[in-house]
Amino acid sequence: MEYHIYLAGEIHSDWRDQLRASIQAKPGITFHFWGPQENHDLSDAIGEHVLGEQPNAIYKDLQASKINNLRTELHLKKADLVIALFGEKFKQWNTATDAATAIALGKPTIIIRPEALHHPLKELSEKANVTVDTIEQAAQVIDYIFA
Amino acid sequence: MEYHIYLAGEIHSDWRDQLRASIQAKPGITFHFWGPQENHDLSDAIGEHVLGEQPNAIYKDLQASKINNLRTELHLKKADLVIALFGEKFKQWNTATDAATAIALGKPTIIIRPEALHHPLKELSEKANVTVDTIEQAAQVIDYIFA
Amino acid sequence: MEYHIYLAGEIHSDWRDQLRASIQAKPGITFHFWGPQENHDLSDAIGEHVLGEQPNAIYKDLQASKINNLRTELHLKKADLVIALFGEKFKQWNTATDAATAIALGKPTIIIRPEALHHPLKELSEKANVTVDTIEQAAQVIDYIFA
Amino acid sequence: MEYHIYLAGEIHSDWRDQLRASIQAKPGITFHFWGPQENHDLSDAIGEHVLGEQPNAIYKDLQASKINNLRTELHLKKADLVIALFGEKFKQWNTATDAATAIALGKPTIIIRPEALHHPLKELSEKANVTVDTIEQAAQVIDYIFA
Amino acid sequence: MEYHIYLAGEIHSDWRDQLRASIQAKPGITFHFWGPQENHDLSDAIGEHVLGEQPNAIYKDLQASKINNLRTELHLKKADLVIALFGEKFKQWNTATDAATAIALGKPTIIIRPEALHHPLKELSEKANVTVDTIEQAAQVIDYIFA
Amino acid sequence: MEYHIYLAGEIHSDWRDQLRASIQAKPGITFHFWGPQENHDLSDAIGEHVLGEQPNAIYKDLQASKINNLRTELHLKKADLVIALFGEKFKQWNTATDAATAIALGKPTIIIRPEALHHPLKELSEKANVTVDTIEQAAQVIDYIFA
Amino acid sequence: MEYHIYLAGEIHSDWRDQLRASIQAKPGITFHFWGPQENHDLSDAIGEHVLGEQPNAIYKDLQASKINNLRTELHLKKADLVIALFGEKFKQWNTATDAATAIALGKPTIIIRPEALHHPLKELSEKANVTVDTIEQAAQVIDYIFA
Amino acid sequence: MEYHIYLAGEIHSDWRDQLRASIQAKPGITFHFWGPQENHDLSDAIGEHVLGEQPNAIYKDLQASKINNLRTELHLKKADLVIALFGEKFKQWNTATDAATAIALGKPTIIIRPEALHHPLKELSEKANVTVDTIEQAAQVIDYIFA
Repeated sequence: MEYHIYLAGEIHSDWRDQLRASIQAKPGITFHFWGPQENHDLSDAIGEHVLGEQPNAIYKDLQASKINNLRTELHLKKADLVIALFGEKFKQWNTATDAATAIALGKPTIIIRPEALHHPLKELSEKANVTVDTIEQAAQVIDYIFA
Repeated sequence: MEYHIYLAGEIHSDWRDQLRASIQAKPGITFHFWGPQENHDLSDAIGEHVLGEQPNAIYKDLQASKINNLRTELHLKKADLVIALFGEKFKQWNTATDAATAIALGKPTIIIRPEALHHPLKELSEKANVTVDTIEQAAQVIDYIFA
Repeated sequence: MEYHIYLAGEIHSDWRDQLRASIQAKPGITFHFWGPQENHDLSDAIGEHVLGEQPNAIYKDLQASKINNLRTELHLKKADLVIALFGEKFKQWNTATDAATAIALGKPTIIIRPEALHHPLKELSEKANVTVDTIEQAAQVIDYIFA
Repeated sequence: MEYHIYLAGEIHSDWRDQLRASIQAKPGITFHFWGPQENHDLSDAIGEHVLGEQPNAIYKDLQASKINNLRTELHLKKADLVIALFGEKFKQWNTATDAATAIALGKPTIIIRPEALHHPLKELSEKANVTVDTIEQAAQVIDYIFA
Repeated sequence: MEYHIYLAGEIHSDWRDQLRASIQAKPGITFHFWGPQENHDLSDAIGEHVLGEQPNAIYKDLQASKINNLRTELHLKKADLVIALFGEKFKQWNTATDAATAIALGKPTIIIRPEALHHPLKELSEKANVTVDTIEQAAQVIDYIFA
Repeated sequence: MEYHIYLAGEIHSDWRDQLRASIQAKPGITFHFWGPQENHDLSDAIGEHVLGEQPNAIYKDLQASKINNLRTELHLKKADLVIALFGEKFKQWNTATDAATAIALGKPTIIIRPEALHHPLKELSEKANVTVDTIEQAAQVIDYIFA
Repeated sequence: MEYHIYLAGEIHSDWRDQLRASIQAKPGITFHFWGPQENHDLSDAIGEHVLGEQPNAIYKDLQASKINNLRTELHLKKADLVIALFGEKFKQWNTATDAATAIALGKPTIIIRPEALHHPLKELSEKANVTVDTIEQAAQVIDYIFA
Repeated sequence: MEYHIYLAGEIHSDWRDQLRASIQAKPGITFHFWGPQENHDLSDAIGEHVLGEQPNAIYKDLQASKINNLRTELHLKKADLVIALFGEKFKQWNTATDAATAIALGKPTIIIRPEALHHPLKELSEKANVTVDTIEQAAQVIDYIFA
């Protein structure tokens, strides 16, 4: 059996590798992991990279966001499970956008966030299926689901 | 004709009143405006207000968020148009959550944000139908749509 | 503005009247309340009442359930809000069925159940938007949503 | 060809093994069976197992239910067929919840229940595609569908 | 409150008038009834009536069916309830088509058919919410639903 | 690549074998064909076969239809393409039911019917994607689609 | 009863007025007509009108199209019926876009096009419910649907 | 992993081959490409090819379009990504129809069009996820999405 898991959120740490390493192997099951572009500079520049120089920063951003959104949409729609990590440092609206989109599309969704962020994330956390504090806890949940 | 418009986002200013005042009257059309609870203290306390004291801050938040999410969900699902305002000061994940949910539910959506926020909001802006800088511009868009 | 509210659950008490009486009047808003057949004998007999005597108790039940399900489906699909009450005495699977159906159809849903039932109802409660202990608390939630 | 079958309901007997053993082998077809956590203690404790001790029994239940619901949602949404068994002894609302959710999501659904329970389950039975009395009868239905 | 009821099926009798006359008045509720074109000749000729003579009988039929299907689709999609009557004499595939479409679109559906037709209609009847033998029984069901 | 094709309609001829034989082999593509129970006696008796003798012919039919409808629903929902054949002799409402359901579910659908039936099937034919007169023509269409 | 009709297509003639004038009055029925911005210059300039001068023609177009698309989306989603007119002179891709979107959203759709355009519009015409040659024929179809 | 990509649009050039050649190989990923019938004469004649001579050019077109639309619908619904190319020369409404349908069905969609066509395609471009000028740019986007 094959399952697609989309890993939304923070791109400045190796949390995706940690998560993959923490999940127990399950006989007969293959997980395919997808996520956003993790090279921040490339993510910001991809619009100009493909289409050439844009007239200003807003349109540089707009063209980059179109390609980033296409990537996210394609992989999110294929996903059987979505995990979104909010870090201490980067309070990205992108992560909230991806998690809320996943939930509205009916995707089973786990949020990982440090307990210190519980207040500003309370509505989004409550909409998600499960909210945990650490990467290891998310891996435990995955192990429980597929056991 | 009656249309429901949901006004997501910032609750610490009178932007909803400004918007309503800026929209031109249209013969034969009534707009019903809805939005989140704008009394911040009540919004945070509504869980304990209804269910009594909770054991800690996390569960106080969780119960409040359940009732706030119910309010948002009911009015968002009835909405014909959603407008989400991001202010300079409060970088709420809630606003991103509501806007992304509206878009995923297929609601026509306008984002209002100061131009200074274009970079961190670029992906969400690109998913919305229209992004403007000011409340007056949003009113102009509404006038154009219903003219 | 008109909103339809479906009141699922217990039919052997006057909780629907209590709820209606507890909700504050809201200028410009009319609530239409619907619910299951509250005459238990008629509810059980409606199949034979319409179609004549059936060969045995199972088919008497089947024909009654078809008509009861049609009633529930029509009003549930029109509902903007669903409230399901679980009483101490009658542990109806019907109430769980209606609440779960409402949630799966994307209807904003409130569950009312005595705190003593929290354990057996924990999964259903968690799927609903809000769970409260009393009829008055449900009315408070409705007042909050439409304020 | 691969089909996913979700087996909702009673977790205190070996009915899932009996069902699997009763289904005839079909050349070229593989069935993947999923169901809820069958270790009752683990099912109740999984919230605290992952997130640590909770302040009271209600929140212990709430955190467990979140993880159990995530498990159910993921496997139910992948299912091509859902079978829900109601036993004589444990009158779980969970089973009704899962069956009603499956039906509302458009999943072909079989209910197994002892004939003695026909009356309290009449509305849910009527919404399901097929209701049978025994595990062997459910296996016969599966054999008929894939013959 | 206003409800739309689509009356599919036989066009060579006055059953729609009989049904309307049999339903009890309900204070505060208005029913809007719609159905197919009941003038059989006009129904067959409407394609040529609008578009002019067609090259042969098949294309005369095709153009008529396009306009008849548009009529049915528009009113069926607005309907809160669909009632389909199969008569003894005209064994129309159109009625089965409309009833099956209504059911697949999630419309609450009642079938009226003489008991003598139970065998050939068994699968369609089982998919509908309720099957009755007479127009009066259908009116009784409507009275029960809206009481 | 694998595609599921559901073959609805007539069960008293070998048209399914003829169709399979007429389709050209396509490198890299496997077609899985499904259809209703073709043993008419078993199809009528399956309810009693599984559940034991029923009190009368109507309930014998009802129980059979439940199992037949489960079979059809499961395979129809998996189908990438639906083909429905109407024969000269058996004017089954079942075939119209299955074809209309497939179309309402958004399944690409081909109807095969002798030209002599064009008039009574005109509305259903017009809703289907393609209508042809012979099995060989349906095979030609499939060859064209996957070439 | 109120119905919304969206009139897509050509903006350089008074066909919308002609159509409205050609439809017969129907007691108890009100039609609300909506359509795109018919002032071509304003339609092209609306982006700069709201947001100020853009850096080049492509971005002037992009900002105008966002507001035009929001207008179309809002009114199309409310529509009970969509009519799209293709004129001889302006071979707009916009009209095809709106008609195809309406059809994919499940809106009953009529296309008006001069017979001379039958070949390039054949696939779109076939997806629509009805295709007619003149405005008067479209009015006749509307009269037939609501008679 | 396998992904289906539908290549809509121009059929008189070898752009599909160019695109396939420009996409970088990705370990573990197979792309299946589908598109319309590229033999223009066969595409126009397929209706008569299957069903025999039709009475006039309009009905020849209608029958061809039915089969072409079936082909497009089947492959578009299976697609994970849709790419639509508008060429300088053939201003097909078909391409706009397919792209708008894909977008309305929620398919991630890329448009390729020469910059010279930006004005007439502005609304459709804005609805698509990404618009590029050349085939190589589309390939770059695909490389970015699956990297």
